[in-house]
Amino acid sequence: MKCVTCGEPAIIDIKRHNAGFCAHHFIEHVHRQVERAISSFRLFSENDRLLVAVSGGKDSLALWDILNSLGYNAEGLYLHLGIEGYSDRSQQKAEAFATREKLTLHCIDVQKETGFSIPGLAHRVRFEPCSVCGTVKRYFMNRFAATHGFDLILTGHNLDDEAATLLGNLLHWQMGYLGRQSPLLPQKTGLSGKAKPLVRLTERETAAYTVVRGIDYIIEDCPLSKGATSIGYKEALNMLENLSPGTKHHFLLGFLKRGKALFPGDTPQLSPCKNCGQGTTGEICSFCRIIEKAARNDSD
Amino acid sequence: MKCVTCGEPAIIDIKRHNAGFCAHHFIEHVHRQVERAISSFRLFSENDRLLVAVSGGKDSLALWDILNSLGYNAEGLYLHLGIEGYSDRSQQKAEAFATREKLTLHCIDVQKETGFSIPGLAHRVRFEPCSVCGTVKRYFMNRFAATHGFDLILTGHNLDDEAATLLGNLLHWQMGYLGRQSPLLPQKTGLSGKAKPLVRLTERETAAYTVVRGIDYIIEDCPLSKGATSIGYKEALNMLENLSPGTKHHFLLGFLKRGKALFPGDTPQLSPCKNCGQGTTGEICSFCRIIEKAARNDSD
Repeated sequence: MKCVTCGEPAIIDIKRHNAGFCAHHFIEHVHRQVERAISSFRLFSENDRLLVAVSGGKDSLALWDILNSLGYNAEGLYLHLGIEGYSDRSQQKAEAFATREKLTLHCIDVQKETGFSIPGLAHRVRFEPCSVCGTVKRYFMNRFAATHGFDLILTGHNLDDEAATLLGNLLHWQMGYLGRQSPLLPQKTGLSGKAKPLVRLTERETAAYTVVRGIDYIIEDCPLSKGATSIGYKEALNMLENLSPGTKHHFLLGFLKRGKALFPGDTPQLSPCKNCGQGTTGEICSFCRIIEKAARNDSD
Repeated sequence: MKCVTCGEPAIIDIKRHNAGFCAHHFIEHVHRQVERAISSFRLFSENDRLLVAVSGGKDSLALWDILNSLGYNAEGLYLHLGIEGYSDRSQQKAEAFATREKLTLHCIDVQKETGFSIPGLAHRVRFEPCSVCGTVKRYFMNRFAATHGFDLILTGHNLDDEAATLLGNLLHWQMGYLGRQSPLLPQKTGLSGKAKPLVRLTERETAAYTVVRGIDYIIEDCPLSKGATSIGYKEALNMLENLSPGTKHHFLLGFLKRGKALFPGDTPQLSPCKNCGQGTTGEICSFCRIIEKAARNDSD
């Protein structure tokens, strides 16, 4: 297999584009896909102050590196979730990358801020860890972006993530979620805007990108995420992708182009949380309710 | 595992209903699911003259048997497609069942009618056999129903078939197909109405039903259907069903209840084919065009 651009030996074969690439032109391909996502979905401009949600995994580090290479001004935010061993190791990866690339990484220690780690919180409020974790991360990312003047939070969600979410929403006909699923979630009352510049790249491509760019990332999955239903959706889609390369791409991009508009985009009415001020559909946001409940159970 | 109705040992465990059944109550369960489909989708009434499209496989024979048991007046139509060995063997199964149950089975030999077998036609017109077969079956079923005064053609499409079709239509965002997919396709210009009374039953349940009822059916798949994409869709859905029983049911039934109405139901304008009179979007229907093309290629 040869590179489709220069004819040198290819290091990766991307079936859905019917193309192989050498290392140099693979990097170029990745950058082009991200630029295309940024422009076609009008995600942001060079004047925006961007905050990358950095987990230390391949997707978020690849995203930060790509933005940096493309000349965007993006700082990173790492949230230490207090997951034994895993959180320390992933923070080290994020810090090592930031140091190497001379980028600004901000770190927040959730346990220091709230008094609880994610496993501790989940245990106390008896919720699924992934659900508690999502709420906590959303809260701290929004708070940090608001208090530090960032225009947009960027996450490393890739094509596999977004196609899996879409499949899950369709299997359950989650009309509201389907109307809202997008690579760009606009700013709302007390909540920052969010964008997903990697929607045109698969997990396999972001992993290969970090390898080619010599980026060291945390390979292990979060120990709390085992058995997550999204993994099943990804496996099913990978099976279909193997049978017909391009399936995931056409499924997600076709939805964004033709399907999405059909679903009621009923963005729920938000008002500021009476406790913290972040947008919520109730009086008190879910983050504040979780912390309150955990503190109550703690003192029992 | 015990029967949920009588407490006797169960012969089948249906995870999505969280229930096991003995042979007697399994039959009752199957009948109830079909009656529910007939009434909730208003498929037909006892006064309708029903024609079952009988292939000799488990689904169509189970359907015919269920309708007969429920007291509906249904005759069968078998189409001999000229597929070597397979067509003869499946016709024998259909005839043996009709004889055993004292039901009326009509048979049409496609090769005698058109001069071509399905493999012969597909070869001559250079189309996919499954596509040619669908067109030919549709033509003869419609013609027979029209000339013999049947109100509705019934097919053995089950929950797996319909969920796989839905998944395929969503993966490609086939808006027109999504707007039309239904267990009941109403009568149109020169085309009979069609209904699918087995949409609430899985392949596994129709297979178990034929075993319990001692119905001998053709187990082998059609030799021309190998590698059909619908098989991949079924496998992906079965994987998800194993992870979360009820997935297929909620996916299809949720679509019919909440999703379908969102898609444009642009039923194409039909006019009678200038050759045969059956409804078509063009001047000459696809069946007549295929036969014409095959005859032309034959004389080359």
